[in-house]
Amino acid sequence: MKLGLFGYGTIGRGVYTLVEGLDKSYNVSIPKVFDLPIKKEQLGDKLVTDIYDIINDKDIDCVVEVLGGHDVPYEVIIGCLKNGKSVITANKEVVSNHLEEFINLAHENNCSFCFEASAGGGIPVIRTLIDNLKVNDVNDIFAILNGTTNYILTRMDEDNLSFEDALFLAKKNGFAEANPTADLEGLDIVRKINILSSLAFKGNISNDDIYHYGITGVNKEILDIIKKEGYALKFVASSMKNEENEVLIRVEPTMVPLNHPFASVKNEFNAVLFTGSTNSDLMFYGKGAGSIPTATAIVSDLVSILENRAYINYKNLNQLKVNHDLKNLYKYFIFQEDGKYEIKEEVSDKELMASKFYARVI
Amino acid sequence: MKLGLFGYGTIGRGVYTLVEGLDKSYNVSIPKVFDLPIKKEQLGDKLVTDIYDIINDKDIDCVVEVLGGHDVPYEVIIGCLKNGKSVITANKEVVSNHLEEFINLAHENNCSFCFEASAGGGIPVIRTLIDNLKVNDVNDIFAILNGTTNYILTRMDEDNLSFEDALFLAKKNGFAEANPTADLEGLDIVRKINILSSLAFKGNISNDDIYHYGITGVNKEILDIIKKEGYALKFVASSMKNEENEVLIRVEPTMVPLNHPFASVKNEFNAVLFTGSTNSDLMFYGKGAGSIPTATAIVSDLVSILENRAYINYKNLNQLKVNHDLKNLYKYFIFQEDGKYEIKEEVSDKELMASKFYARVI
Repeated sequence: MKLGLFGYGTIGRGVYTLVEGLDKSYNVSIPKVFDLPIKKEQLGDKLVTDIYDIINDKDIDCVVEVLGGHDVPYEVIIGCLKNGKSVITANKEVVSNHLEEFINLAHENNCSFCFEASAGGGIPVIRTLIDNLKVNDVNDIFAILNGTTNYILTRMDEDNLSFEDALFLAKKNGFAEANPTADLEGLDIVRKINILSSLAFKGNISNDDIYHYGITGVNKEILDIIKKEGYALKFVASSMKNEENEVLIRVEPTMVPLNHPFASVKNEFNAVLFTGSTNSDLMFYGKGAGSIPTATAIVSDLVSILENRAYINYKNLNQLKVNHDLKNLYKYFIFQEDGKYEIKEEVSDKELMASKFYARVI
Repeated sequence: MKLGLFGYGTIGRGVYTLVEGLDKSYNVSIPKVFDLPIKKEQLGDKLVTDIYDIINDKDIDCVVEVLGGHDVPYEVIIGCLKNGKSVITANKEVVSNHLEEFINLAHENNCSFCFEASAGGGIPVIRTLIDNLKVNDVNDIFAILNGTTNYILTRMDEDNLSFEDALFLAKKNGFAEANPTADLEGLDIVRKINILSSLAFKGNISNDDIYHYGITGVNKEILDIIKKEGYALKFVASSMKNEENEVLIRVEPTMVPLNHPFASVKNEFNAVLFTGSTNSDLMFYGKGAGSIPTATAIVSDLVSILENRAYINYKNLNQLKVNHDLKNLYKYFIFQEDGKYEIKEEVSDKELMASKFYARVI
């Protein structure tokens, strides 16, 4: 099989290395890599700088897209699928916005669309979810899906760092991007819980409909109170479907009891906990980010295509309505400007918004 | 597809129910169920009481074996594979003793052999391990694989019960068998870690070579000391391969720090933690036993056969030598008859055996 690679950054180089290490019997080669002209020295004749050099290459059967961003990746994915090339991507922004279109195009053109690395990084959660759904209806999903923020919260807690110092450390250690806003505000998590929910509940959800509240308001005073109350603070996405076919979904700081499995999910680790109709409380835990874990997920997808196992048997997803009542199932910790706090049931949105910081309590 | 079912006990009935609930497009029916004549009233004309009524039925493409025991299941599995029928089993005793023979027979006869439910119950750990190994070499496995003993240790700890009372409660709640010796002494775990290690390290291991030390010596005094020292006691299997191609493998009570992910694995739950060459610290957590979780794993296997995804690409496993040096990597807690205890490095087998109770410390 001839593989085209879009993007030769950290993840792209990881993919390249792992593909070279694959069992020779798979017979995979990478004749073309798309990136900027600056990569000429590293890539030599393999470098192409026009996406259509790969999209229109009839010898290329499959592509890996690890460019980042939205517009170019979207054009790459659509173009390749229309030409019957299987596509593997790690791009959560594009996948969360266009999953149905990609799945349907793959069906129509008799190729595969794989996105294991787009949620949960190196944790094989998407394949497991798709497999499991054949037998087991998912009732709800509960997940820590962002390594950057989990790293920050862990370092603040364990090293007694300020938010700013923990963020600096995260950047220094490669766990936060130069502009971490999408991570800190929860938008990255919104995209990932959207992908998992779309699969679990077999429908489309708009990212814009998913409520998210970030962790930039956390400080040491708040963390000390939360610890004293017997909880750990995690940045958690929750999603479930009610009987009216509406999705209840929220991304917000969440206090978990210290003996909850999520309390021991630390640093850059992620975890996803499912409750299902026949198999309850299934949890997957692993590295949610990083070049090699992410590349591992991508190359696992590639192997599933090589072995004809990359099959998603649902298409034409329904549009799912988002219902914001999920909040009413929980108590909330509300911290005020003057340092006073309370943990109470049935809070209003107004109370939450008027607080200095709040967290759901489970 | 016509499915033959061997065994109509708790798990067999769960399988029957889940197969009836499968999407109609799979077109699966169960024309014959093997069990004792006493099941005639429940099964009517579907009941067969001679295993060869299914083994030699040319219309049956695939069988599920959930009989328990060794000799009859072995004959069933061998007979069906030789006749080209795919086999799905939950039988850890048979799988741990004959995995290579079954995999090779399936290859020779162009059918599948699936055993997801034989280790980790409802956790999809075997499929994930097989998939992951295409890209990611496993360095070591660390696992809680027995729901009965984990339930007993949890109830002793949380309800302050004696060992005997916790065992009674486990039996009452269906988490322990009438004769729980294989669970309490670790033999059940030996079989499961053998299966996982055989896959991870691509070789055969004899159950007899795997050292195991049970939990029957645990009492409240010991648990209190362990808790005071900042640990939780778990019954853990560990396995790794060294550079000489030897497997280091042990099953023994293990003290895990309270902030370790295993400390929050409670009651009948199981967990399996892998470290790999490209994807480190991947953990799977879920129910290790129970009719419906186990049946879910079995029917997931069935779906993978129906979708032509049930493929194991290694055969002719090497015989792996077991090296007992794993012990030397850890400290041990040694509790004496007189109530004195110490935590020390480099203990001898003689010291361990002379103690009233011991546990590895990680």
